[in-house]
Amino acid sequence: MRYSQLLIPTMKEVPAEAEIPSHQLMLRAGFMRKLASGLYTYLPLGWRSLRKIMDIIRSEMDASNAQEISMPIIQPIELWQKTGRDADYGSTMCTFEDRHGRVNALAPTAEEVVTSLAASEISSYKQLPINLYQINTKFRDEFRPRFGVLRSREFIMKDAYSFNADAESLDKSYREMYDAYCRIFQRCGLEYVVVEAETGEMGGSGSHQFTTPCDNGEDVIVFTEDGEYAANLEKAAVDPMEKFQLDGVGGIGDPEQVHTPDVGTIEAVCGLLGTQPAMMIKTLIFTTANGETVVCLIRGDHELNPEKLVSLLGQGAALSGESVIQNLTSAAVGFAGPMGLAEKADQMIVDHAVAAMPAGVTGANETDYHIKNVVPGRDFPIDGENVQVADIRNAVLGDTYEGKKLLFKRGIEVGQVFKLGTKYTEKLGATFLDENGSSKPCLMGCYGIGVNRILASAIEILHDENGCVLPASIAPFEIEVLLLNSDSEAVVAKAEQIYSELKEAGADVLMDDRKARPGVKFKDADLIGIPLRIVVGDRGLADGNVEIKRRTDAKPALIEADKAVTEALKILDELYQPLTP
Amino acid sequence: MRYSQLLIPTMKEVPAEAEIPSHQLMLRAGFMRKLASGLYTYLPLGWRSLRKIMDIIRSEMDASNAQEISMPIIQPIELWQKTGRDADYGSTMCTFEDRHGRVNALAPTAEEVVTSLAASEISSYKQLPINLYQINTKFRDEFRPRFGVLRSREFIMKDAYSFNADAESLDKSYREMYDAYCRIFQRCGLEYVVVEAETGEMGGSGSHQFTTPCDNGEDVIVFTEDGEYAANLEKAAVDPMEKFQLDGVGGIGDPEQVHTPDVGTIEAVCGLLGTQPAMMIKTLIFTTANGETVVCLIRGDHELNPEKLVSLLGQGAALSGESVIQNLTSAAVGFAGPMGLAEKADQMIVDHAVAAMPAGVTGANETDYHIKNVVPGRDFPIDGENVQVADIRNAVLGDTYEGKKLLFKRGIEVGQVFKLGTKYTEKLGATFLDENGSSKPCLMGCYGIGVNRILASAIEILHDENGCVLPASIAPFEIEVLLLNSDSEAVVAKAEQIYSELKEAGADVLMDDRKARPGVKFKDADLIGIPLRIVVGDRGLADGNVEIKRRTDAKPALIEADKAVTEALKILDELYQPLTP
Repeated sequence: MRYSQLLIPTMKEVPAEAEIPSHQLMLRAGFMRKLASGLYTYLPLGWRSLRKIMDIIRSEMDASNAQEISMPIIQPIELWQKTGRDADYGSTMCTFEDRHGRVNALAPTAEEVVTSLAASEISSYKQLPINLYQINTKFRDEFRPRFGVLRSREFIMKDAYSFNADAESLDKSYREMYDAYCRIFQRCGLEYVVVEAETGEMGGSGSHQFTTPCDNGEDVIVFTEDGEYAANLEKAAVDPMEKFQLDGVGGIGDPEQVHTPDVGTIEAVCGLLGTQPAMMIKTLIFTTANGETVVCLIRGDHELNPEKLVSLLGQGAALSGESVIQNLTSAAVGFAGPMGLAEKADQMIVDHAVAAMPAGVTGANETDYHIKNVVPGRDFPIDGENVQVADIRNAVLGDTYEGKKLLFKRGIEVGQVFKLGTKYTEKLGATFLDENGSSKPCLMGCYGIGVNRILASAIEILHDENGCVLPASIAPFEIEVLLLNSDSEAVVAKAEQIYSELKEAGADVLMDDRKARPGVKFKDADLIGIPLRIVVGDRGLADGNVEIKRRTDAKPALIEADKAVTEALKILDELYQPLTP
Repeated sequence: MRYSQLLIPTMKEVPAEAEIPSHQLMLRAGFMRKLASGLYTYLPLGWRSLRKIMDIIRSEMDASNAQEISMPIIQPIELWQKTGRDADYGSTMCTFEDRHGRVNALAPTAEEVVTSLAASEISSYKQLPINLYQINTKFRDEFRPRFGVLRSREFIMKDAYSFNADAESLDKSYREMYDAYCRIFQRCGLEYVVVEAETGEMGGSGSHQFTTPCDNGEDVIVFTEDGEYAANLEKAAVDPMEKFQLDGVGGIGDPEQVHTPDVGTIEAVCGLLGTQPAMMIKTLIFTTANGETVVCLIRGDHELNPEKLVSLLGQGAALSGESVIQNLTSAAVGFAGPMGLAEKADQMIVDHAVAAMPAGVTGANETDYHIKNVVPGRDFPIDGENVQVADIRNAVLGDTYEGKKLLFKRGIEVGQVFKLGTKYTEKLGATFLDENGSSKPCLMGCYGIGVNRILASAIEILHDENGCVLPASIAPFEIEVLLLNSDSEAVVAKAEQIYSELKEAGADVLMDDRKARPGVKFKDADLIGIPLRIVVGDRGLADGNVEIKRRTDAKPALIEADKAVTEALKILDELYQPLTP
């Protein structure tokens, strides 16, 4: 195609709204434009890249016994009520009331829809296993959309769903998808790591996350140096902590109430009492989807891990509102403490690290008061009918797993696979008759890839100071022919010839035929990140030469003009080699 | 692909909910399943057909200087408020409030979004003309979804938008799209007619509609027998009526008020007074988007044409609510009449046919009363500052246009092209600097195709009593190899060989490898409508033969098994000939 006929609005300036390189470059290279917060229009170049990514995904899914279908974006809320996930998603789900007063969700995912399809269309073990997928738009009403398409309100997802007769078959489907994902990310030229993952709102028994390591990623992966353990932060398990020495808390005398007026944060309490966050016990109160009140105890320097909590509870849970907290603690928010709360709450969960504390400072369940010398197991229970010790916090630097030090790395989640078991099929009646004629719920797996995130993370990890550096497989074009002197007949003729011959050979070629200064053309070529370029100019052509340069080469090479096509195709083959499973 | 590995849930029974053949067959052939009213999941076969249709559209758009982009489904309502079309669409538009309280529309179309893109990215005549298109999901909150995907709440539309510097350029873009549409529908194997169309909510100066003639279509096209005039019902102009003889209305004496209690309909009034609907004058009261009150007079046996009215008013309009009518007429709904109303309303529009009436019966603007002997031009004005005579009704049998009798045909609208002029670009600031440096609004065209409707109307017009009869270009598969005896090694081997060879030759082949009775396989093959099938069975193969049959052939032909592939490819070529522009 010809540059002059395409809408490629490149920009010199770094857009103020864009915080990270991939977001900046997708705007600067004219791949997309923002319509509103978290909503982007893909322009011709960005859309070409996305379509190439979708084609790669489609071909690997088709090769892995998955069948493409297309489910509606509008989903009746009743389906979500049957699985209870309307509450789990809460305000993250976009919903609207139609003219007949029915409430509808805009697909954040499609387990409910596909399972209800399976319920009506699958009846016999002979139809299993089956794997149905779609590539379709999904929606999340993000509180704070950011990082361009990495956290947007509307995005393209490939979502696949397998239905299986038994665990062995589910393992096989899961493995097929896992392997397909490895091939997809390799073909897209993405570095990735696979880690164990928490299943979160999806539910189910096992999950792996495919993550592209990069400093600006919102996800954190946790691993042991020997590589034997790797998980995302939501999943990463930690060894129980060793007991530490007391310092500033005082001896473990009786609990002692202290006046702590006007202190809003852990740090302020520490300042007032001369102690450290690690000596504090945070008391967090949750309300579950079923309406239960759950008290969670976390060390002051730790963070509660909502996925671990949800997984432990087996249901969704959100921080309780002010009135629930005040009713439970008889105090203002900020002064909750564990003493006496286990009897009032439905459950109390004590994080391992809290249980390991010799003593701590807690809220007093009285406004403007804290209590010192609170000893776990003495002043509040750490076991009992409704009390348990569990791992409900995020791993931190210094933690170990099976005795090995945990390391941390940031990344972008680009895909995740889940073994869902019967969570959805039981609730939605997706059963089948087995060989003996008895009815069983299907086992289920689900497998997602963020299409837009593949492009954004490729740019995030592969850019340089001049722009995108895209893999040949997902660049908007494979080769650019850059015509330096549009008023020279010889130059135009040679460039046109090279352009035509490359196209005939099946290459995806962009011809920069604009009447623009060479500097502008070079800068745009670098910015867009096309992997290979051929420059046809009058000076070189006088000697029968053109320049050829990979996007990653520091300098161009001179080559006989008549050999340019052969050479370019050879280099293109080389560029595809690491992208070929 | 193999039938045994695909989800193809064919049904013998005609689903009760499906009123027309295309809807029945898309369900029966396992092309789709209903999720909820007006929402369908496409299963593998239906989705394959839709993808083929999208590929055809894409290739013709790309060949016509259009560039593919992708715009968000979620659109800020503010954009719609700028053009005033939020009011025009009203409750047909799906809207939702997000977590920050902002109102968003689900794209019913994308003029506003693409024009705001043009406003920010186009600045110079050098960037024009430009034609941007997408293939994306659109939404309408239909009051009564029906006929399967023909009137659904969610559908796939190809929408293209050209921006042009002058009328000549717009004409050229419009013509390019018009021609591309002709090629697209031909390649899809669709019979179609092109008619002049009203621009309706889109606005603009000119439009053509591409319609597939069929008895179950919701659209009506109107044409003269000589083919010189063709338009859709919304657009079709009519000659003014000739005056007719009075009968039962009485002489044209003075207006005479008559007591007509408890009559709710035109027919009831006629019954009471012994007159005919054609002698009645209906008084319809509209409120426009700008809040004006417009009185419309229509003959009792005619129907008001909302598109003609909106086009005449230059703004949206809807029937007024009860309170507006009661205020204006001082009477209950059902008793409005033209006498004295022109002074009270902002506008009065008298349909041509009413102006041609010698006299008529009207409401009395008094509850339970009508008036006889009402003479247009005598008892109410037919011209004046706020009164005009115009064509605001639907054509009916008996009407003429330019003296020629109008004929009527039903059809399915599959595409429409519009010259929009500057309606959107002025309101949204999409201007450019021309050669002389002066700023002008872009001219604009928009061009839509209903992707799902192409499939549905192909089935609607091409089915027979056994099922779908699909053109080779859009059938889920081009050829089916039907394996009759799955326990015969020779049959399986020959079928596999034919299947492989056809695939290698590039044909899109389905192999019915199921262990099912021949009758079931034959019935399913017919139902799905694959254009060509090869049957491999033990009886034929004993003589070295297989059967080959077009879906439209009454009987199969015997052919040497070794020549089956060559023959099938030859027939396939023939099937594609009428589909090739």
